[in-house]
Amino acid sequence: MTFKQFPEQVFIREVGPRDGLQNESKFINTEDKIEWINQLSSTGLSYIEVTSFVNPTWIPALSDADSVVKQITKAPGVTYAALVPNMRGLNRALESQIDEVSVFISASETHNKKNINKTIRETETVLAEVVRESITNNKSVRGYISTVFGCPFEGNVEINEVLRLTDSLFEMGIEELSLGDTIGVANPLQVRILLEELLKRYPQEKIAMHFHNTRGTAMANVLASLEMGITKFDSSLGGLGGCPYAPGASGNLATDDLHYMLSNMGIQTNINAEKLLSAAMFMQDKMDKPLDSHTVKYRMNN
Amino acid sequence: MTFKQFPEQVFIREVGPRDGLQNESKFINTEDKIEWINQLSSTGLSYIEVTSFVNPTWIPALSDADSVVKQITKAPGVTYAALVPNMRGLNRALESQIDEVSVFISASETHNKKNINKTIRETETVLAEVVRESITNNKSVRGYISTVFGCPFEGNVEINEVLRLTDSLFEMGIEELSLGDTIGVANPLQVRILLEELLKRYPQEKIAMHFHNTRGTAMANVLASLEMGITKFDSSLGGLGGCPYAPGASGNLATDDLHYMLSNMGIQTNINAEKLLSAAMFMQDKMDKPLDSHTVKYRMNN
Repeated sequence: MTFKQFPEQVFIREVGPRDGLQNESKFINTEDKIEWINQLSSTGLSYIEVTSFVNPTWIPALSDADSVVKQITKAPGVTYAALVPNMRGLNRALESQIDEVSVFISASETHNKKNINKTIRETETVLAEVVRESITNNKSVRGYISTVFGCPFEGNVEINEVLRLTDSLFEMGIEELSLGDTIGVANPLQVRILLEELLKRYPQEKIAMHFHNTRGTAMANVLASLEMGITKFDSSLGGLGGCPYAPGASGNLATDDLHYMLSNMGIQTNINAEKLLSAAMFMQDKMDKPLDSHTVKYRMNN
Repeated sequence: MTFKQFPEQVFIREVGPRDGLQNESKFINTEDKIEWINQLSSTGLSYIEVTSFVNPTWIPALSDADSVVKQITKAPGVTYAALVPNMRGLNRALESQIDEVSVFISASETHNKKNINKTIRETETVLAEVVRESITNNKSVRGYISTVFGCPFEGNVEINEVLRLTDSLFEMGIEELSLGDTIGVANPLQVRILLEELLKRYPQEKIAMHFHNTRGTAMANVLASLEMGITKFDSSLGGLGGCPYAPGASGNLATDDLHYMLSNMGIQTNINAEKLLSAAMFMQDKMDKPLDSHTVKYRMNN
């Protein structure tokens, strides 16, 4: 019996300040966001998605994107990224001197339409311009495809559409692609099947996985991805986030839980567990409610 | 790149009425326990551990073991088991006509001592008699080893001690062994390493895995076990249970979450998801607090 070896090192993309906060109803003060991101910068994380330059009326929780990016203390060796939906968002992002730009599109027509009121094709046109302009301004770009493993409106999502969008985004010039299980329906078999196709076309270091834990399968999906050679995972400290289509249900995979599993498997992350937990406790205090991660819940009771 | 195939069928051992309830402070009325077990019997589960014949002063939550076993409606095709610590417990179990007896021992000396006030060697002597008497009375026996992947007092647990106890229990005459991650510290690499050793000596159908989700790793550990060919898993409906050493932290792997993942991977369980969820909702109502499973939390918000 032979097994795939696990990778020696994994890179965690912390998305809590963006994907975590955007789904929370409570507005976190700008100074608290900045303090939190500065704490995250000291944990050893090499990548933090700090906010989103969408229209503030869409996501009031992140309406202070410009102030946040301008005031955080950038640590050496950390990439600070922000989500950008269009040229207007990109101009704000460039003005605030973000390191990296993230663009997003859904693999499901209905989800894309409900999310940003454009068809997938219209969105591709917009993103092509955003990516081109980012590169012109010496910014690297990360691409997100959401609802990769299932859509809250359409159910099944075609692998071929995911592959088509993958090609489309890499042709535009993105450096890294993040495949999102936006509503947390993925299972490890699905992960294997998709990655088997994808890794025929692109090397593993270009692919990140973005799981939500809505049905408790996120860590198993991480394991399935590790076995396929994937070394980049998005997660949100404390499991902050929730599912946009089921308030109260579990949300993003928790960075602290992911870090627990990886480090106990001997996989390097360069992250300090105590600093990570301390940053989670800080945000739990500001959110004024118990965070969802197992690591935080365990610590609160011991 | 070749992968281990997943098994076609998995057998879930429902331990909620025993392992779930024993760690909850609230006493569930006998008639409600019976109603719940009867509901579980209708879900398609083939195995239910219904109670524990330990000294009622140890675990007041299960002090009505005799009444529960005598009054449940036994469904055809379902095995009803109960935990038995000693001959006194066995006599009660036999008197109430349980189908199968479960015996337990810890792989950590300190945990065993704190749990049942005996050394491991003393416990082995007791269990040998319990297993012998059970077999004499035509009852099959299931063995549990707890703290297999770590001990709350000693930390590391030696694989050699787990292997020694495995041999000891099978020599006594147990039919199936359940390996317990009592405090939820296991990671998939540990699972692989242990099972690689164990499956050199015993066939996979003799081994069940019993994971707790205290650090969120239970489902990943299930996946690692599936890849090793394991087809038997203990779980507790709704994630009922909690960690005995961290009140409020996540407890047993939730049957409904496990079932979600398995069925979406195309693995047969013969369990009806709706009936399972309905039985979880019944117990959530009786417990008068939100259950911990992701499936229940999701349903409560949709």
